[in-house]
Amino acid sequence: AEVKKIAVIAGDGIGPEVVGEAIKVLKKTEELFGYKFELEHGLFGGIAIDEKGTPLPQETLDICQRADAVLLGAVGGPKWDNNSKELRPETGLLGIRKALGLFSNIRPAVVFDCLKDASTLKPEVLEGTDLIVVRELTGGIYFGEKFRREGAGGQEAIDTCVYNVQEIERIVRQGFEIAQKRRKKLASVDKANVLETSRLWRETVNKIAPEYPDVELEHVLVDNCAMQLLRRPSSFDVIVTENMFGDILSDEAAMLTGSIGMLSSASLGEGSFGLYEPVHGSAPDIAGQGISNPIATILSVALMFQLTFGYAEAAEVIERAVKQVLDAGHRTGDIAVDKSQAIGTTAMGDLIVAAM
Amino acid sequence: AEVKKIAVIAGDGIGPEVVGEAIKVLKKTEELFGYKFELEHGLFGGIAIDEKGTPLPQETLDICQRADAVLLGAVGGPKWDNNSKELRPETGLLGIRKALGLFSNIRPAVVFDCLKDASTLKPEVLEGTDLIVVRELTGGIYFGEKFRREGAGGQEAIDTCVYNVQEIERIVRQGFEIAQKRRKKLASVDKANVLETSRLWRETVNKIAPEYPDVELEHVLVDNCAMQLLRRPSSFDVIVTENMFGDILSDEAAMLTGSIGMLSSASLGEGSFGLYEPVHGSAPDIAGQGISNPIATILSVALMFQLTFGYAEAAEVIERAVKQVLDAGHRTGDIAVDKSQAIGTTAMGDLIVAAM
Ligand SMILES: CC(C)[C@H](C(=O)O)[C@@H](O)C(=O)O
Ligand SMILES: CC(C)[C@H](C(=O)O)[C@@H](O)C(=O)O
Repeated sequence: AEVKKIAVIAGDGIGPEVVGEAIKVLKKTEELFGYKFELEHGLFGGIAIDEKGTPLPQETLDICQRADAVLLGAVGGPKWDNNSKELRPETGLLGIRKALGLFSNIRPAVVFDCLKDASTLKPEVLEGTDLIVVRELTGGIYFGEKFRREGAGGQEAIDTCVYNVQEIERIVRQGFEIAQKRRKKLASVDKANVLETSRLWRETVNKIAPEYPDVELEHVLVDNCAMQLLRRPSSFDVIVTENMFGDILSDEAAMLTGSIGMLSSASLGEGSFGLYEPVHGSAPDIAGQGISNPIATILSVALMFQLTFGYAEAAEVIERAVKQVLDAGHRTGDIAVDKSQAIGTTAMGDLIVAAM
Repeated sequence: AEVKKIAVIAGDGIGPEVVGEAIKVLKKTEELFGYKFELEHGLFGGIAIDEKGTPLPQETLDICQRADAVLLGAVGGPKWDNNSKELRPETGLLGIRKALGLFSNIRPAVVFDCLKDASTLKPEVLEGTDLIVVRELTGGIYFGEKFRREGAGGQEAIDTCVYNVQEIERIVRQGFEIAQKRRKKLASVDKANVLETSRLWRETVNKIAPEYPDVELEHVLVDNCAMQLLRRPSSFDVIVTENMFGDILSDEAAMLTGSIGMLSSASLGEGSFGLYEPVHGSAPDIAGQGISNPIATILSVALMFQLTFGYAEAAEVIERAVKQVLDAGHRTGDIAVDKSQAIGTTAMGDLIVAAM
């Protein structure tokens, strides 16, 4: 088989632990399917700040750029929270997205049967919830000009939100295309009653919509969407939105499933290249104890197989193995009802590998 | 008693119906407590567009400016949704906030016992939820410069988010002061890991915090707050945040109580002047049928009594009357379990007046 290069960025907190288990799963698929992966490890985030003086060393970027896909653990922690902007893990995250052209963040929010009760929503409301938030990732207010100046009301801070038609078109098309392969419903979220960028967003969506006549389109204002996600989560299929709205709504959507420790995500650019990571963060409070849940990272490998490598069968084998282990009652502490029965990170990884 | 001037802006959709019932309640308090209210009615929103060619006629602004408080129904509807910016009801809303200097929006999210089941959250999660979102209302990205220009990626739209120290200080102080009168917990919400306005926000909050040593302060990132509201709603007391985050989070908070048809809000400036309105919108789909729920608007009168007039006793009488009518099992359609038993807008208003 063709050798696939994967850049592995373990990052901070529980990142290295969960990535370790995901690598075991990768190796197992080499054995089962004859794939060949070449892994190159890079420093990123807080650990890169500590060891290299920058959250995103050029060397790490080089490793990612010559890879076919990136597997990322998690970055950040209180240790670096009060650093200046250039020395913060988040700055590295924004930088890597921009440098790799990852304009689209795909966040599936699905309910795992065995975790239904973990949600704060009523089970009958949650029933059938299976949605994807498609978030624009390299534009908007995160990347616009930012500065301070003196004004009449004291110091003044400014952030600029910018979108052009091209940026909107490519992410909206992706929303439509993902919807076409699913339940054919797209909710486009904006604040077109107030913002100019949102009005351009909505105009662009309406311009493109006729190319996807089979997809049912609805425009939802962001404040209303924050409500509707709570009121009727199962009625959403694909939600497409700009960077900041996507940040907020994808986290809300993830939390309402009750399955946040299990959710994976993909950040994509043009072509098949992608960066894959669990939705959960670096969880510095439990790092190094060997109790973190590796499932979201393992499922990120499955997502990588689907979206970057086209290894659909192996992706399914991974997903089935996860399901089987959960169905057999095995739980890490975060998802265990009876915490005394919880198993550790390595044990969970081993069980999943064995079930493959 | 001193004559209090109230500007009454019924607005669109169900606005006139629900305001009508609130006026009955006002009149009843004149009878019971000897208050004197002078009501002046103004056109606003869609109806003002239709009759005067602008959502916020100067005459309406004059009425508000010479009043002690404003009672607003609701504005907007599909009829005006595709109008140009200057001819949209929302533009009137933004305009009236700015013109009247209403920099603070107070949105209590409480759970009504009789509506517990209406929430999509589990009752045990909701238990004890009683929070207030304090939203900055005249700054940020809603009011910054907006424009379009041609760029390399096609047409480009720009919104500008601006905050100065003075604007942040006054709203944050209000957050602290409200928290002091409640459970003494303040969550300040920002996106300080990415935005410059948020960094100035957080610095300003930290600068002011020592003046309120009895208030426990926590900083929460906006994406995390969207999650925590779902995970632990009852742990929040007061949330203070900038305009756009407040827009999204206050709607999420309102929806999770399940009581959105019952929630009132206040928009305040310097001094005691305030604008009071229900949280629900103009509900054009049920307008004119006499079935809308007037309780949120009636409770907005109680809020006006508390915050603008200092009529604490009358405010309590109104709130108790609402509770009594609900406890007796009376429901409008939106909150009735058995819709066939639902009563109309006028009947609900009459029952509340009778219970006072
Ligand atoms: C850390 C931060 C910059 C980042 C974002 O908001 O994009 C994070 O919240 C995320 O959603 O990946
Ligand atoms: C209509 C709109 C301008 C307004 C806002 O976002 O401020 C509304 O959503 C609100 O929250 O009062």
